[in-house]
Amino acid sequence: MQNAKVVGVEELNGCFDRSAISSLVRGAIIAHSRGQTVSPPMGELHFNAHHGECHLRCGYMLGGARFVVKVVTGFYENPKVGLPVNSGALMVFSATTGLFESVLLDEGWLTVWRTAAAGSLATVALARKDTKVIAIIGAGQQAEQQTFWHAAAFPDAEFVIGARDPEKAIALSKQLQQHGVRVRAEASIQAAVRAADAIITTTPATKALFQSEDVRPGTHITAVGADSAGKQELDPLLVARAKVIATDDHTQCIERGEFGVAVRQGFVKEDCDTSLGDILSSESEFRTGSDDITIADLTGLVSEDIAMASFFIDQLKTSSATSQ
Amino acid sequence: MQNAKVVGVEELNGCFDRSAISSLVRGAIIAHSRGQTVSPPMGELHFNAHHGECHLRCGYMLGGARFVVKVVTGFYENPKVGLPVNSGALMVFSATTGLFESVLLDEGWLTVWRTAAAGSLATVALARKDTKVIAIIGAGQQAEQQTFWHAAAFPDAEFVIGARDPEKAIALSKQLQQHGVRVRAEASIQAAVRAADAIITTTPATKALFQSEDVRPGTHITAVGADSAGKQELDPLLVARAKVIATDDHTQCIERGEFGVAVRQGFVKEDCDTSLGDILSSESEFRTGSDDITIADLTGLVSEDIAMASFFIDQLKTSSATSQ
Repeated sequence: MQNAKVVGVEELNGCFDRSAISSLVRGAIIAHSRGQTVSPPMGELHFNAHHGECHLRCGYMLGGARFVVKVVTGFYENPKVGLPVNSGALMVFSATTGLFESVLLDEGWLTVWRTAAAGSLATVALARKDTKVIAIIGAGQQAEQQTFWHAAAFPDAEFVIGARDPEKAIALSKQLQQHGVRVRAEASIQAAVRAADAIITTTPATKALFQSEDVRPGTHITAVGADSAGKQELDPLLVARAKVIATDDHTQCIERGEFGVAVRQGFVKEDCDTSLGDILSSESEFRTGSDDITIADLTGLVSEDIAMASFFIDQLKTSSATSQ
Repeated sequence: MQNAKVVGVEELNGCFDRSAISSLVRGAIIAHSRGQTVSPPMGELHFNAHHGECHLRCGYMLGGARFVVKVVTGFYENPKVGLPVNSGALMVFSATTGLFESVLLDEGWLTVWRTAAAGSLATVALARKDTKVIAIIGAGQQAEQQTFWHAAAFPDAEFVIGARDPEKAIALSKQLQQHGVRVRAEASIQAAVRAADAIITTTPATKALFQSEDVRPGTHITAVGADSAGKQELDPLLVARAKVIATDDHTQCIERGEFGVAVRQGFVKEDCDTSLGDILSSESEFRTGSDDITIADLTGLVSEDIAMASFFIDQLKTSSATSQ
């Protein structure tokens, strides 16, 4: 690592550790809920000529050793020319001297992993203990990863995939089956939702993917798709039905999440959400009955990004030290 | 360059070309004045426990091939432990696909060079043609570089250095003399200013460095130090005396520059500035008399950063191609 200031995807993959990541993301969500993040509002760049967008975040934790600047891009015409939609990089600096430390060319994987980890933590915290069927809505990279992370957290559950394009749902379910996941594709999003005890939405949709009445009593929903103004996956009526609305960051979820859509349309009050960090750090159950609807609205935290970057840098330093 | 996605200071130094940089910075200032920059507001992080700050910028030019994310840090206790105050990096991505292209670990040099280039362009455009004595206020890296860039633009001029710490002014003038610059240190900022036909202020000061009455009629002032709220180098009375107040970006100079200080204190009207880009692209003279006070208030442009990054990346690609 001495001169290897640049870390690529292969090196990151070599340090991948689901249990460690889950634990550090839990800690990052809790630390954020306790006000330990220092971070200015997210920045955005839009490339209208190329149907592209870029999200920027930066921040540090009070008393923390590092600060990060994260760039994530999404250019939605890229697949037409054989390129991935997402790219990005994460720069890491010392929070005590400002000196550059590393750039992680993660191609978006650190964000993918921490988002999947946060999703599964939220579902474990709020879904019924007897959850048997988990619907994954969407058929992209985040749908795939949420399935893996939820399969690890719910080893006895069965998965159903629902996507706007049923062909893509079939393709993803086949791919997941090859990894040993008990999963099938449903013909529609509605069918997948109706079968589910827990629903994970992972799309860049801009309107509700299914109706509130499609969702059975007692269902938990983790929504990770909406991360900027104008995006929406959930029916506000469903948000209004929820006994618990967990948000990873109150302000971000108002500005960018499902919670904000329901607040702006008058379905729920602005102060009716509960901090996901408080839920994760609490000894008590937030779900009070087996018929409760519970929702986790996740917009992503810079504290998660900082914790991810630090973990991988430290892992790489350790492995480099032992290999010498 | 194929795999060399990381560019260090040595490589950048190897491509340094003052005339090319001056020309591209001129183009970037003009392009910005014509509304061709797409850039969200600057982001800032403050590290109060370590007297540190971090500035972030990002953006692209309409029709341009690249976008940049620039991080510049300043940690003012660093010299106590033998570290430089400034660090930073510049990430470059494709503006058509969002894919990561390069990270330039410039240790702040691209910013230093483009700031010095912009300063000398402004002085050439607004100072009297018979400028003989140029005062450089400050004794840091930007003071040194502004001297070099102005010496190239005003080959017959003589330089005087004035700094809050006269010892530092002497040290800098000795160092500059070794590079063949005709320069001497003055005992005080006031003495340097009184001797000058043009004044370049380069400090992180938070109040006026000298009084308006110290400045002779006909003097031009280029102020590059103030780049964030709370910083100030010029006496607002001096700003009020100016026949021409050139700003590189009207909004930034209101928020962060000398112009904003004078506007907020009621010394000048908010619409009395002239775009530096318009001045640089104009055929006509903006200085109307040899007794005019003229001021250029520079806060730095992301268009300059984009042009700098593109120039160095292209130079490195070319040199890599020819060496194969």
